[in-house]
Amino acid sequence: MRAIVTGVAGFIGSHVADRLLARGYRVLGIDDLSGGFRENVPAAVDFEPLSCNAPLDDLFKAYRPDAVFHLAAYAAEGLSHHIPHFNYQNNVLGTVNVLAASQRAAAGHFVFTSSIAVYGHPTGGGAFREADACHPCDPYGIAKLACEQQIRAAHDYFGGPTYTLFRPHNVYGPRQNIADLYRNVVGIFMRCGLQGEPFPIFGDGSQTRSFSYITPVAEAIAAAATEPAAKNQTFNIGGDQPTSVAELATAVAEVLGVERKIATLEPRNEVQHAHADHEKAARVFPEALGESVELREGLQRMAAQVRTAPIPSPTPCPAPIELPARLPPRWQ
Amino acid sequence: MRAIVTGVAGFIGSHVADRLLARGYRVLGIDDLSGGFRENVPAAVDFEPLSCNAPLDDLFKAYRPDAVFHLAAYAAEGLSHHIPHFNYQNNVLGTVNVLAASQRAAAGHFVFTSSIAVYGHPTGGGAFREADACHPCDPYGIAKLACEQQIRAAHDYFGGPTYTLFRPHNVYGPRQNIADLYRNVVGIFMRCGLQGEPFPIFGDGSQTRSFSYITPVAEAIAAAATEPAAKNQTFNIGGDQPTSVAELATAVAEVLGVERKIATLEPRNEVQHAHADHEKAARVFPEALGESVELREGLQRMAAQVRTAPIPSPTPCPAPIELPARLPPRWQ
Repeated sequence: MRAIVTGVAGFIGSHVADRLLARGYRVLGIDDLSGGFRENVPAAVDFEPLSCNAPLDDLFKAYRPDAVFHLAAYAAEGLSHHIPHFNYQNNVLGTVNVLAASQRAAAGHFVFTSSIAVYGHPTGGGAFREADACHPCDPYGIAKLACEQQIRAAHDYFGGPTYTLFRPHNVYGPRQNIADLYRNVVGIFMRCGLQGEPFPIFGDGSQTRSFSYITPVAEAIAAAATEPAAKNQTFNIGGDQPTSVAELATAVAEVLGVERKIATLEPRNEVQHAHADHEKAARVFPEALGESVELREGLQRMAAQVRTAPIPSPTPCPAPIELPARLPPRWQ
Repeated sequence: MRAIVTGVAGFIGSHVADRLLARGYRVLGIDDLSGGFRENVPAAVDFEPLSCNAPLDDLFKAYRPDAVFHLAAYAAEGLSHHIPHFNYQNNVLGTVNVLAASQRAAAGHFVFTSSIAVYGHPTGGGAFREADACHPCDPYGIAKLACEQQIRAAHDYFGGPTYTLFRPHNVYGPRQNIADLYRNVVGIFMRCGLQGEPFPIFGDGSQTRSFSYITPVAEAIAAAATEPAAKNQTFNIGGDQPTSVAELATAVAEVLGVERKIATLEPRNEVQHAHADHEKAARVFPEALGESVELREGLQRMAAQVRTAPIPSPTPCPAPIELPARLPPRWQ
């Protein structure tokens, strides 16, 4: 079995590549290293330093993948309001290019990591379910939803590839880039803790998320291409334990053994509570999702890795700011 | 009052520019002439031959528009499956660029022509209503929905511009390009009738649409920026008279006074019945929509114009075919 993984040098992509190798796949990985790191790429992966917007046909056709796992994206949801053109160029056109190359290479299955951001603000209370209407409210979520729809439309019109769409949320763990100022609150808190800086929190920290440890998420994604019940299906995936950002700060400080200092920022326009129902994924991927990793346990595993690795230099914004109005001062 | 109209050399755009001029607007029009014609542009319009993907800031800031009417798009819905990258590049990135330029130029209102294609296949039977969940099933509809969401998200996040979104369907009338092989069945039938060719119909012609005469549609769009009840609202707009494509062929043949000859093509994957409820638009735009133009009357007005104008040379596909599988032979 041959798999292509985009975003293979990124956090989730590198873990998915690990799990695919463990399942016996040969893996070709591509990544433009704009957000990931070469050292994240598992040694057994055939690596090509390519953008998802590059011409991919020759590579894909020569590799003849059974499945393509498209994980590459620029995933700073809050910042996406300020760089909409970059967001759509990178995430929509990149996906369309990877999907079309997969179609022309006759890939059998296409796995895409979408996001809980496709749902937008909760309407009925309670956790998001896969069949809920989607009303994304930022460019990042809008782009992810368009990609989901494009993958489905291509399947329905052309008859293939089959697909599995995942909507993960707030994934964290070892190998996450902790030097990105614009995304991943767990990583930001880890870096601040290690460097003696206060934890930046937008508003009062009462916004809640269910933080998701990487291993079960990556395992389910890697299982998708060979799980018949995952064919042409969409799954929420991630943790079930709502935690406020203020509570997260407490947990990260405890795990790192540092004082909990907070830098309070102006509230930003964001979803206050974002949680997803995972009944469907639990039913289809019982083995992959069997291990539930509690937040403090997951943070400890992540801390063990980030303590021993050098802290990368800060990851810059990948594009010039297009709309500077209302840009949080911390991001300027 | 100053308005900018994109797609001003196109069919709907040129009519909207007419209606805006009649309302006393100064109008700056832009169009890359990829699908429209310079001679469609009303003489009083300040015209710039620009793509929506061009740098627009200097122009927009100098013009200081009260309202921007963004009508430019490549609108061949069926063909969009085969040119997905072009579709998203042109229609999503173009819209994002025009919207961002409008924001930076502090435009007060943004009017966008979306499409009935955002709804996808009817689920409950009956006509589409604005609050229905959207499940677009082709790249054209997916892109239009993403644009709607981006306009709404930008407003909600940045506080402006206010917006009005229109979802027209099957608009026809004078100035429509009748030489485009890929879109606008009314125009295609008109040209075939004038040139003695049989009318091409995908399948048995039982698919129904409600064809929409241009004048009331253009009038409502032009009224949107000054109608308080249209602020931050979405409207279906167009005709209410379901007509099968086979019946349309009969009507066009009668109006032109030619024999009704049909070239039956393989059925294509398309929505079988697409109709929209217009109660909301009728309530908000009673004057604009007061004149309901019956199909034969509208076809006669259109025929009067296309008979006197030279038939343009065939409009080519605007981009190389990206996915040739299942391309209808007529389009090859």
